[in-house]
Amino acid sequence: MSTTHSHASSRFELSGVRFEVDYRLPGPESVARERAGHLVVEQTIEYPLDLVKQEWIRDGIVGRIERLSGAGDSFLATISYSTEVVGGDLTQFLNVVFGNASILPHVRVEDIRVPSSLLAAFPGPRFGHRGLRNLLRVPERPLLCTALKPMGLGPRELGTMAYQFARGGIDVIKDDHGLANQAFCPFHDRVARAAEAVHKANEETGKNCLYAPMVAGPHEDVWERIRFAKAMGAGAVVVAPGLNGFDLIRRIAADTSLSLPVLCHPSLLGGMVQSEGHGFSHGVLFGLLPRLAGADCSIFPSYGGRFSFSQEQCQDIAFRCKQPLGHFRTILPGPAGGMSVERVPELIDFYGRDMMLLVGGDLHRTGPDLTRNALAFLGTVL
Amino acid sequence: MSTTHSHASSRFELSGVRFEVDYRLPGPESVARERAGHLVVEQTIEYPLDLVKQEWIRDGIVGRIERLSGAGDSFLATISYSTEVVGGDLTQFLNVVFGNASILPHVRVEDIRVPSSLLAAFPGPRFGHRGLRNLLRVPERPLLCTALKPMGLGPRELGTMAYQFARGGIDVIKDDHGLANQAFCPFHDRVARAAEAVHKANEETGKNCLYAPMVAGPHEDVWERIRFAKAMGAGAVVVAPGLNGFDLIRRIAADTSLSLPVLCHPSLLGGMVQSEGHGFSHGVLFGLLPRLAGADCSIFPSYGGRFSFSQEQCQDIAFRCKQPLGHFRTILPGPAGGMSVERVPELIDFYGRDMMLLVGGDLHRTGPDLTRNALAFLGTVL
Repeated sequence: MSTTHSHASSRFELSGVRFEVDYRLPGPESVARERAGHLVVEQTIEYPLDLVKQEWIRDGIVGRIERLSGAGDSFLATISYSTEVVGGDLTQFLNVVFGNASILPHVRVEDIRVPSSLLAAFPGPRFGHRGLRNLLRVPERPLLCTALKPMGLGPRELGTMAYQFARGGIDVIKDDHGLANQAFCPFHDRVARAAEAVHKANEETGKNCLYAPMVAGPHEDVWERIRFAKAMGAGAVVVAPGLNGFDLIRRIAADTSLSLPVLCHPSLLGGMVQSEGHGFSHGVLFGLLPRLAGADCSIFPSYGGRFSFSQEQCQDIAFRCKQPLGHFRTILPGPAGGMSVERVPELIDFYGRDMMLLVGGDLHRTGPDLTRNALAFLGTVL
Repeated sequence: MSTTHSHASSRFELSGVRFEVDYRLPGPESVARERAGHLVVEQTIEYPLDLVKQEWIRDGIVGRIERLSGAGDSFLATISYSTEVVGGDLTQFLNVVFGNASILPHVRVEDIRVPSSLLAAFPGPRFGHRGLRNLLRVPERPLLCTALKPMGLGPRELGTMAYQFARGGIDVIKDDHGLANQAFCPFHDRVARAAEAVHKANEETGKNCLYAPMVAGPHEDVWERIRFAKAMGAGAVVVAPGLNGFDLIRRIAADTSLSLPVLCHPSLLGGMVQSEGHGFSHGVLFGLLPRLAGADCSIFPSYGGRFSFSQEQCQDIAFRCKQPLGHFRTILPGPAGGMSVERVPELIDFYGRDMMLLVGGDLHRTGPDLTRNALAFLGTVL
């Protein structure tokens, strides 16, 4: 707790370092320019510009239109903000980027460029793509992930399932994202059993399969759940920022003593990409933001499954996981959502080998021997 | 912390009590029915239905299509879920209602009906409409709210502003939602000064104006910030569930020793209502969900301001704040977003007197004497 009662002066010295957001706005140009002019105020001072007496607030705190490009009915307004308005806080960063803009129609965040000095305020992915590979001792092939399900099974049954998958060479075994703390499958019991089962399998296989429990839950319990998972030997965690906020990912990534990889799950976030002209681009919401928060892998619904993201949108997500971002590690795209073993070659073609491929229900389809089914999955990437 | 390692049996006894969600789906009817059939699985077991061996999971855990109504290209599918899948957890409730559905196209949550037994898992609004009025000792007229701004001012200046507004009869003075923990306006200093200023004004006026700081922020700091605010004498808090999750509201509402009213702010949530056929209805997202989480007032962008919600959408939000909801208290709609003193009579006509009316920038427009401007605002509702 910081209780510094500093006497912030009425003329604050800004560093001049700014971050940039590209907003897609509808045309014509005059309208796009006018709306960009509203955005620079709405996202910062929310106050009549003509009433601002302090020049440094007008020039430094209010956003700045850097560029307006485009034609016809679609324009890209690049707006910059002082890094100081963020105060080193990820929730405030999101607030500035899209807080009130989210309740305006037809504003879409297409890109965000964050300077190193602001990146330095966040821990970044602790493991990233390379760190995860090192942990798993899998240097080159695609990583394999599956989920414990269906909801309704108890801790003992899910533990057995985890053991079978770990024996079959799955790299990361995660809770299905609907496993919470239900009476039929209490969190602590499930996590203890699944972690123990995976540990036992690892001793037998000599591998280092990771069990990743879903750690959503009540605000006052979620950190205890994460520490419990660690104490039981879970090797990673799944966080859904739509449920608990992006900042929970940052907190986990920042914790040195915890040192757990984070898989980001898209639950509830989808509403922010489903309108073509509003919200976030797929790449920003499911690639850049999880990485900025510190996730090591971003799970998202791949094209060709039960969901409807296009190839282009999925490509954008994968690109954002890997594009240069200051000193931040690259992370793994985690295509999911109805993937099948049969499609592995095609998915490798599309995403490359640096991904974590999540196959869930399909691993149960080819017979009751889950270890054998997992081995068949593994066989497709060897 | 609960570390019960219960041995959940493989045949769990469900209570049979269910909650219902109305999803808007596009037609024709055969397509809507097929998609409803996918939803009942997607929102629960995420697993091939034909592979589920346990009858109780197929019948009890998987959602159930209760009704399908509509015609042409728009249908309403009423789906029910066992209350047990929620496990008494608000994040899991949201997960089931719309987690993965959010990444499917064209699904909109139009209504949710929650039985008393599930409502009982949540604290509900601690104060609600009546409780807030009692606290403020304002039995009947519309409540008046304003925000400390613009961002860039320091704690001392905002403290002075808070004093002036409190002297002028404003009921609730909140931080602008962009006030975080910036170096030019650190959280602790600002909150201490603003709370003290409002306290001083209250001693002079004999009223009980409440100061409500914005308590977004890092996951590990946010609870300390809330407790600090309480300790300094803040009378309420502002929470943005889009930044820190709906569950933070629940946690505050549940805390007896804290006993602070919560104002819900819509930042970042807007993406979930901007597509006509996707996301949540305005009433559910900005009325029902804040109330379910335990907010006492839901701030939202009213028609006729800087934003674009229609009269019908605003009416829907206000209705959800007040409609019967088990034993839950009714809460106050908080129309905001560019409201002006001039429009007060019209807004009373529209929302009725049971609201908290937020006028921000406009209170600075009519001259530098903020107390006088506030008194003029107060005059419109006396």
